[in-house]
Amino acid sequence: MMPKNRLEAFSDGVIAVAITLLALNLPIPAATPGRDLASTLGHDWPNFAAFVASFATIGIIWINHHAMLRRIARVDHTTLVLNTFLLMTVCLLPFSTALLAEYLTASSGQKLAAAIYGGSFTLMSLGFLAMQRHVLVAHPELLHEQVTPEVREKVLKRNRVGLLPYAIATAAAAISGYLTYGISLAIAIYYGIPRTTADVAERELPS
Amino acid sequence: MMPKNRLEAFSDGVIAVAITLLALNLPIPAATPGRDLASTLGHDWPNFAAFVASFATIGIIWINHHAMLRRIARVDHTTLVLNTFLLMTVCLLPFSTALLAEYLTASSGQKLAAAIYGGSFTLMSLGFLAMQRHVLVAHPELLHEQVTPEVREKVLKRNRVGLLPYAIATAAAAISGYLTYGISLAIAIYYGIPRTTADVAERELPS
Amino acid sequence: MMPKNRLEAFSDGVIAVAITLLALNLPIPAATPGRDLASTLGHDWPNFAAFVASFATIGIIWINHHAMLRRIARVDHTTLVLNTFLLMTVCLLPFSTALLAEYLTASSGQKLAAAIYGGSFTLMSLGFLAMQRHVLVAHPELLHEQVTPEVREKVLKRNRVGLLPYAIATAAAAISGYLTYGISLAIAIYYGIPRTTADVAERELPS
Amino acid sequence: MMPKNRLEAFSDGVIAVAITLLALNLPIPAATPGRDLASTLGHDWPNFAAFVASFATIGIIWINHHAMLRRIARVDHTTLVLNTFLLMTVCLLPFSTALLAEYLTASSGQKLAAAIYGGSFTLMSLGFLAMQRHVLVAHPELLHEQVTPEVREKVLKRNRVGLLPYAIATAAAAISGYLTYGISLAIAIYYGIPRTTADVAERELPS
Repeated sequence: MMPKNRLEAFSDGVIAVAITLLALNLPIPAATPGRDLASTLGHDWPNFAAFVASFATIGIIWINHHAMLRRIARVDHTTLVLNTFLLMTVCLLPFSTALLAEYLTASSGQKLAAAIYGGSFTLMSLGFLAMQRHVLVAHPELLHEQVTPEVREKVLKRNRVGLLPYAIATAAAAISGYLTYGISLAIAIYYGIPRTTADVAERELPS
Repeated sequence: MMPKNRLEAFSDGVIAVAITLLALNLPIPAATPGRDLASTLGHDWPNFAAFVASFATIGIIWINHHAMLRRIARVDHTTLVLNTFLLMTVCLLPFSTALLAEYLTASSGQKLAAAIYGGSFTLMSLGFLAMQRHVLVAHPELLHEQVTPEVREKVLKRNRVGLLPYAIATAAAAISGYLTYGISLAIAIYYGIPRTTADVAERELPS
Repeated sequence: MMPKNRLEAFSDGVIAVAITLLALNLPIPAATPGRDLASTLGHDWPNFAAFVASFATIGIIWINHHAMLRRIARVDHTTLVLNTFLLMTVCLLPFSTALLAEYLTASSGQKLAAAIYGGSFTLMSLGFLAMQRHVLVAHPELLHEQVTPEVREKVLKRNRVGLLPYAIATAAAAISGYLTYGISLAIAIYYGIPRTTADVAERELPS
Repeated sequence: MMPKNRLEAFSDGVIAVAITLLALNLPIPAATPGRDLASTLGHDWPNFAAFVASFATIGIIWINHHAMLRRIARVDHTTLVLNTFLLMTVCLLPFSTALLAEYLTASSGQKLAAAIYGGSFTLMSLGFLAMQRHVLVAHPELLHEQVTPEVREKVLKRNRVGLLPYAIATAAAAISGYLTYGISLAIAIYYGIPRTTADVAERELPS
């Protein structure tokens, strides 16, 4: 068992790089005579829309990761491995975001790109749930003692339920990529509303 | 309520990546026989000019973010959400900087690119003000107790006033992109002058 | 001699950026009428396969680096220089990963690209061993006192043995790039199995 | 005056990103039938050579920055501004490195690219010296009390002398880009030799 401080630092670093890389896919149209900048940028609106939804989602992941690690007192090898898997799913998001932006208004490929977009969020939620289960169910001795069985059950349930909207967003790609995008954005907005991720015991945890 | 240390670490990470990505838009002209490197680099001077102004501006944002968080003792969910929004506006700056560099000397699109450049700074200032208002006005219980009502009022006023130059820089795009650039650079230089961001109570804050 | 905290922070930063940059090589096929997204992504499968193996490998490097630094109480100038060399080998991995992805299914260059891929892992292992030898053999006074000669011998042996699979993966490039890839992936999976990197004294180390 | 911990974290972040971005300029030749990978990579040797010298140089900058900040107990606004300038010069290095790599073996532009390469190191040394002078000469009250006037004089002299080799490397561009490169690499190797940057008082500084 090891202390968790470097796990936090490394995770913060990876999430910070991944969230910032999202901006690399904002289009800089080349200055070509006869091409209008406003209409070119307007045509590229899916890049900006996808940027906003994915940035908000990664921001929420970070907030949840932060809350998860606060409950943990120390980590074992499996926690590190599961965290690496979770970070890998986060690093896939700039890819799936760029794919959605490229295909959302294209004549073909829209549904597949949207399914990959929703699927990458679902995969990330699964990674999160796997890590939560490892500490909350299999190894509660890694937790701070303030995290009672009731709190553990509550947190786990919230995580299980949290999978559902992303699964729906992924399935919705069969209907329309716009629907997948809309659901994903709505999820990020929902989690941004005050107090939805707080739980009572959180206030009493050491920093 | 949660401790603020990971908020600092994550914000430092995002701002550090965003500021460094600015350099990705410095042009590396391909070595082509018959093309003169000096004149090619000279032709690309807006890239270097935009890099300097934006780097200085993000540097100033970081210093101000640093000062803002020093006044805060702990954070709530809304602080985290507002901070994520602020970081999103910072991540837009490499995009708006690259856009200005591409269009500053172009035959069309200059004014729009400059308006987006100034607008991205204005948006960032608004994000900053929103986060400041949340802690200074709505939730002063998140602050260190040394931050008296007088200090709070002073800091808030400075932030409100700080919006104005960026709004002017944005409006100036209607006249000329060079004007927007010049005002933006002047703002960064002004904030770089010693003591303009200090306030009396700052010395007494815990680290 | 200096404290080790900034060495950890800088190393975490470099490894976090390197691991996230791996995702920059995931292909975003341009939306072109008449080109099928599914088959284009399918054709690019080596990019995804190389991403997974390299992400897992850098994740393992980070876990091992974490364990190595936990044994160290303070660092000297040579430790910093050897750590810089180790980080340089880590930064080469996005390059060698992209090279493998580009050539794994190509009609020529496959074996060379695979040799460079395996070779970059071998070089990284050598950098790791050099840093371990510096503290475990040449300067045990840099270690925490709980790290007994027996533990030192055990850790060093494990590191020496750890070189072998990467050397084999590199040599296997003479037969087939797929073999190099398969061995590299197997190594990452092996190290991901619980407890393979733990040693008894680890539990007693200060954080 | 403010504590220095976030200055360290932000600087570590920027330097970590800049050093890792160097690897983005390692060439991934497209797999084209009839083109030999070995000879293509061989033709691109300046990219690898420039990567090694610049990585080592940024590594040394980080070690020196680390040593500089250890002497400092707290920072003022000007320290933050000078540090931002220093970080800007560091962020220019991936650009000047890519420029040298592109032009080192080109038929024209070699000397200008080399002058920019050496010049970027010189600028970085000047940024370093400016920050050192601010704390060592103008504001010694920012230093730990163990940093005696003798130590201050010694450190400052070393920094002033350290400018010279980079100025020579820059001037050498008038003769040959290879000479600039060779001197730059030699400087990095020299600083990598044990103990050249240590000074007696360093051992006694708090972490």
